[in-house]
Amino acid sequence: KIDGARLWDSLMEMAKIGPGIAGGNNRQTLTDADAEGRALFKRWCDEAGLTTGVDKMGTMFARREGEDPTALPVYVGSHLDTQPTGGKYDGVLGVLGGLEIIRTMNDLGIKTKHPIVVTNWTNEEGTRFAPAMLASGVFAGEHELDWAYDRKDAEGKTFGEELKRIGWVGEEAVGGREMHAFFEYHIEQGPILEAEGKDIGVVTHGQGLWWLQVTLTGKDAHTGSTPMHMRVNAGLGMARITEAVHRIAMDHQPAAVGAIGQANVYPNSRNVIPGKAVFTIDFRSPDLEKLTSMRRELEEEAALIAGELGLGIEIEPVGHFDPVTFDENCVAAVRGAAERLGYSHMDIVSGAGHDACWINRLYPTAMVMCPCVDGLSHNEAEEISQEWARKGADVLFHAVVETAEI
Amino acid sequence: KIDGARLWDSLMEMAKIGPGIAGGNNRQTLTDADAEGRALFKRWCDEAGLTTGVDKMGTMFARREGEDPTALPVYVGSHLDTQPTGGKYDGVLGVLGGLEIIRTMNDLGIKTKHPIVVTNWTNEEGTRFAPAMLASGVFAGEHELDWAYDRKDAEGKTFGEELKRIGWVGEEAVGGREMHAFFEYHIEQGPILEAEGKDIGVVTHGQGLWWLQVTLTGKDAHTGSTPMHMRVNAGLGMARITEAVHRIAMDHQPAAVGAIGQANVYPNSRNVIPGKAVFTIDFRSPDLEKLTSMRRELEEEAALIAGELGLGIEIEPVGHFDPVTFDENCVAAVRGAAERLGYSHMDIVSGAGHDACWINRLYPTAMVMCPCVDGLSHNEAEEISQEWARKGADVLFHAVVETAEI
Ligand SMILES: NC(=O)NCCC(=O)O
Ligand SMILES: NC(=O)NCCC(=O)O
Repeated sequence: KIDGARLWDSLMEMAKIGPGIAGGNNRQTLTDADAEGRALFKRWCDEAGLTTGVDKMGTMFARREGEDPTALPVYVGSHLDTQPTGGKYDGVLGVLGGLEIIRTMNDLGIKTKHPIVVTNWTNEEGTRFAPAMLASGVFAGEHELDWAYDRKDAEGKTFGEELKRIGWVGEEAVGGREMHAFFEYHIEQGPILEAEGKDIGVVTHGQGLWWLQVTLTGKDAHTGSTPMHMRVNAGLGMARITEAVHRIAMDHQPAAVGAIGQANVYPNSRNVIPGKAVFTIDFRSPDLEKLTSMRRELEEEAALIAGELGLGIEIEPVGHFDPVTFDENCVAAVRGAAERLGYSHMDIVSGAGHDACWINRLYPTAMVMCPCVDGLSHNEAEEISQEWARKGADVLFHAVVETAEI
Repeated sequence: KIDGARLWDSLMEMAKIGPGIAGGNNRQTLTDADAEGRALFKRWCDEAGLTTGVDKMGTMFARREGEDPTALPVYVGSHLDTQPTGGKYDGVLGVLGGLEIIRTMNDLGIKTKHPIVVTNWTNEEGTRFAPAMLASGVFAGEHELDWAYDRKDAEGKTFGEELKRIGWVGEEAVGGREMHAFFEYHIEQGPILEAEGKDIGVVTHGQGLWWLQVTLTGKDAHTGSTPMHMRVNAGLGMARITEAVHRIAMDHQPAAVGAIGQANVYPNSRNVIPGKAVFTIDFRSPDLEKLTSMRRELEEEAALIAGELGLGIEIEPVGHFDPVTFDENCVAAVRGAAERLGYSHMDIVSGAGHDACWINRLYPTAMVMCPCVDGLSHNEAEEISQEWARKGADVLFHAVVETAEI
């Protein structure tokens, strides 16, 4: 079994970097806080005797040697970046959980045939630079490196510039590594495990996603002196599309969600009718047909709404992945580990996207989940119990050690 | 008659300060650009032989002496601050039109019994610091000076700090000046004069206004892993209230308008259900009953919307004035001047708020308006013809000279 107290201490130590405003974290990707978090993780990896490589996307790979020099490594990991008002566990648990199983192996003198590599994927959150899971997406061949470098944040800074600025452009080509398997440990970020009273989620599938960035173009005009019939109000268009997104998601129940997380009107002045609105729709479902149908319905309806209001409309996909089915053997390894440890468990579908979803395209992959309080995530109040954290890491430990072969 | 070319040149010269991104201006109140605009205006006032006083709200008063030392001055003016994406004429025409009539009087050696004071009121636009017409509101005793100093911009900087920073805190107590009359010359900012083919709007009334800042409080949560029924989506609440504002304004036609100009969701991340939304509603009508009824209906409906979605709601009035009836004699002076000059004219209600609306509470006040292309204002594409500008300034000249008595 792993050392739950040591894991918790490391989580709390990391949470001091990039503190939020309400007890959580703001350690967005490629910020100074991200660099500080990376440096701390690197130090811990050095102390655990690991050799760290970094690729051109800034993804960190910390390797513990195996006994068979020809065996492909088993990878574990997740991400250290957070939402602007994020929690202390989303992503971090998977990276530090990975480190904890190495520390435990070191303590117990466990040797594995396959090397084990703890990974910190860059820009999983996708908040600062869309899309989410950017580095694992490049690794999986879904995106080109140059395209990823050109992604811009809200201030117009590019991913490439910012990666360079914080000093984490690695030497390695992206995607050059072969994996025996990949395991990602993560908090559920949803309410199911807690509600069902289970300690472990055995993740069999992941939802698919569409992110659609909509730009509506109307006409800036005076809120006081412009008669109602002369208005071309992009903010009103955004409101109607927000309602449509909600209704379409409700029409596709169960197993479908939709919302608008990012929404901006321009010039955003109290007495100016918005001449422009830019916002991002997030639709998800584990069912590809539903996912496609939600997108199609929204596009039709948004065009009608824009037409009625006289607005120009552009819809640009800024994130996408199809629903995911994880590898049968890896999933069985997770389920078997939970079983052997006597931890209550259930099969579960991941509501969120994860780096594991991209890696699963290339190599056998599975995920372990632990519950989180009230299903709350992407919120500074995100919380888990020390016991949940420990049990999930135990399952990760057993599944990884089994796969890496003692 | 005034010198139309000189007036136009001054308008174009001022427009070079705080250029916008699309041919207009971004010379928001208490920015460095505002300071630069003030300095240019001061220099022109000096060159025209005027004596400039500045009050504690930064309002500039440039005085041309009259022949009767006991006579109260006639005031003219408007504002030099602009919207973030504003036009070159909104406000500026009234200040530089006032300067132009002084220059014309100097050229023609016209002496008046009453002094004439050209005024640049601080923070008319209300974009950076709500409410609009802040300095004239303090002058009119509507707001306290300290309260005005405490108004905050989006970055949390206060009006008081920023006024000090740009070096325009004057010595004078605010509201200490008595006026014989006040005339404000302004572009219409609406489509009526152009549509009716009239050169001059004789402003008899002004619309009343309510600005209501709404804060909705929900719960930040993950857009992917949070089931629809567990969401407390402040962005959806904002969308529904946006639609309600529109519908309520439409239900009060004619002579009523409503829209939301400023709208922000938090944390404004693609994969976070907004846990907070803050936005400002702008309702206006020349009819007090309609204005009151729109506000009341909205408050009721917004409470219902928030209740249905489980959102906390706070509604704070951040701007208000009742509908205005301008002074009969001053209005007659404007109408008579247009008549004598042979310019086509019509009576009109101001759709926008103006410093004249506050000053009218204390002293006899009226406004002159000229048309603007397509009724467009609060837009960088705001445009007027040189001829329109000149004719309006002629009317201002005649009305002021008549009131100031040769
Ligand atoms: N796990 C997680 O929150 N990932 C961010 C990408 C997403 O929105 O699903
Ligand atoms: N004239 C003008 O645009 N004033 C700004 C205040 C308002 O919104 O009416």
